[in-house]
Amino acid sequence: MPKLPPATPGMPLADVDTPALLIDLDAFERNLAKMADFVSKAGVRLRPHAKTHKSPVIGLKQMQLGAVGLCCQKVSEAEAMVEGGIPDVYVSNEVVGARKLDRLAALAHQARVMVAVDNEAAVEALGTAARKAGVTLRVLVEIDVGANRCGVPPGAPAVALATRVAREKGLTFAGLQSYQGRAQHLRTVAERRDAIGKAIQWTADTVGALGKAGLDCEVVGGAGTGTFEMEAASGVYNELQAGSYVFMDADYARNQKADGSRFDTFEHALFVYATIMSAPVPERAVVDAGLKAFTFESGMPEVVGWAGALYERPSDEHGGLNLVACNERPRLGDKILLVPPHCDPTVNLHDWYIGIRGMATASPRVEAIWPVAARGAVF
Amino acid sequence: MPKLPPATPGMPLADVDTPALLIDLDAFERNLAKMADFVSKAGVRLRPHAKTHKSPVIGLKQMQLGAVGLCCQKVSEAEAMVEGGIPDVYVSNEVVGARKLDRLAALAHQARVMVAVDNEAAVEALGTAARKAGVTLRVLVEIDVGANRCGVPPGAPAVALATRVAREKGLTFAGLQSYQGRAQHLRTVAERRDAIGKAIQWTADTVGALGKAGLDCEVVGGAGTGTFEMEAASGVYNELQAGSYVFMDADYARNQKADGSRFDTFEHALFVYATIMSAPVPERAVVDAGLKAFTFESGMPEVVGWAGALYERPSDEHGGLNLVACNERPRLGDKILLVPPHCDPTVNLHDWYIGIRGMATASPRVEAIWPVAARGAVF
Repeated sequence: MPKLPPATPGMPLADVDTPALLIDLDAFERNLAKMADFVSKAGVRLRPHAKTHKSPVIGLKQMQLGAVGLCCQKVSEAEAMVEGGIPDVYVSNEVVGARKLDRLAALAHQARVMVAVDNEAAVEALGTAARKAGVTLRVLVEIDVGANRCGVPPGAPAVALATRVAREKGLTFAGLQSYQGRAQHLRTVAERRDAIGKAIQWTADTVGALGKAGLDCEVVGGAGTGTFEMEAASGVYNELQAGSYVFMDADYARNQKADGSRFDTFEHALFVYATIMSAPVPERAVVDAGLKAFTFESGMPEVVGWAGALYERPSDEHGGLNLVACNERPRLGDKILLVPPHCDPTVNLHDWYIGIRGMATASPRVEAIWPVAARGAVF
Repeated sequence: MPKLPPATPGMPLADVDTPALLIDLDAFERNLAKMADFVSKAGVRLRPHAKTHKSPVIGLKQMQLGAVGLCCQKVSEAEAMVEGGIPDVYVSNEVVGARKLDRLAALAHQARVMVAVDNEAAVEALGTAARKAGVTLRVLVEIDVGANRCGVPPGAPAVALATRVAREKGLTFAGLQSYQGRAQHLRTVAERRDAIGKAIQWTADTVGALGKAGLDCEVVGGAGTGTFEMEAASGVYNELQAGSYVFMDADYARNQKADGSRFDTFEHALFVYATIMSAPVPERAVVDAGLKAFTFESGMPEVVGWAGALYERPSDEHGGLNLVACNERPRLGDKILLVPPHCDPTVNLHDWYIGIRGMATASPRVEAIWPVAARGAVF
């Protein structure tokens, strides 16, 4: 049964049922424009990651501003994007298993499809699926540039695998997937610069070695919201894959800029709206948003507008508000805005975005209601 | 768009697409029977918590074994249970906001409905909604017995609120909600006994004070999977609200029994099935289940059957397998079972249960496919 949204268009913000996943549309649009402007000036392409927003509505807005397509992390996520009108999807991840590969190949009848590989056996399986479906799949070879997750080592192993891809009927070698995920949340610019500097060097070396083997990289993809300016300036990367920039979360805001100040290149545009459901004592209240409204692997949500209030001790459907250092006293039924600790998996808990226009004005209203179309698309 | 299930009935386990949320039906049925037998012998009622499973199919199985109804944590969760045929639901939580109260009252036309309160203003709002709908709602007064979450203090404040409930047209005072959530995961029996001992005393005192005020408690509800035997033996509690016992998770398994051994009163019956999607080096592999297949506020998933293998470093759609202390070497495409750290919010990520019969045999097969009907029911 599809879940009904917690709001209707035109409704004042205060009437939105809770917990609800809100987008501050003004801040969100500024974030989209800022990144589009940045990549345009930097002379690189943007292929934003749909694992953040899981919404073809948002993906199409990104493409209207110049993005060349979307990254997805799973085949089912890519299917949801194509179903919503996105014409170019890249599964920036390894796809293993015949059922998934057949679906990926079938999708290439409807859209331009690209996928990552890091293993010879995977190349063979991918080629088989492509030939069976009668399509050609574009393939990036993933190299491990310090994240210690997937990927072959840079250099010779990458050249060997790329050669294998180029030889496989039904596949086209299109370049490198070179994402340093671990660097994104290193707190200082120096740490991030060090990690990305190594990634750039390994990537450049590999591009060079591939060139010597006669294999050109149409795409050299990577970068996230924490480091995109470094990859963009590298002269090696040509396609940025940042996702979180559309929303910004509490964890990214803990990154520092070069001068040590808080990373505020993008604005918080995503919030969970919650209601005070219990206020048993003056220094403590309880909100109706807990482990099923946020995920907590990156710390606690941040409370907006109640200076000194701390969110703590979440349980399934409760969150504690510690008000010891807060001069205000919430009343039962008051509603508050909370910044998610980590936007991607928090979005994945919700069925609807409620887009608010005029969040900073005296009369914020519901303008848009968009489904989180690829919520739960883990296959 | 409803998500398609990752399996079809009759399929061998090995063919189930991943990540998938599996139930070991044999272990699950033993867990249900064990708790049903326990409460029958203890002479208390069982009203299992649906926030664990979010499935009326499972709720009806619990009722067939004697449960008197289900607890729910949100109105929308209760709606999903009633829609699936559950005739008696209790929202064991404070409900705030006119929209939610109207829905709760409307539900009482379809099922027996009970709800918790901890505030006079909430009593008035609840009464208004009940009268508007032309129904009578049964109400438990929540007391704080050490969890420091919701609830009025035991004793006189509870009597005052209960008196207020009894006076409100459209409401019936039905007893006490007295759940010590913090005690559930205290690791030693001594710690749990200490915390629950206090909860029992406060509850008994309050029941006594209510009796003197002429207010009888038809229901004295509380208890979870970590402490239910203590509340059952108290002579005060008469309705147990355990939920996790149906599945058991890795966190509950870290509790100790009286002799210091691992809490194994119930069996692990819930698993996430995952595929090795990358195996870049012998001592490290990557599975396709990460922050969108589990929640991590209670630690890491446990790996089944690969002795020494540790799940670590989850990202959105990846999980690392540390194999340094494991003698086995997974191959690309191998599938593994993982025990969720915390069952309730993990279930809430998935759209389908895949019920497996004969998990311990040489030919486990898909027997049942049940929707997680109340997934995302946070309102």
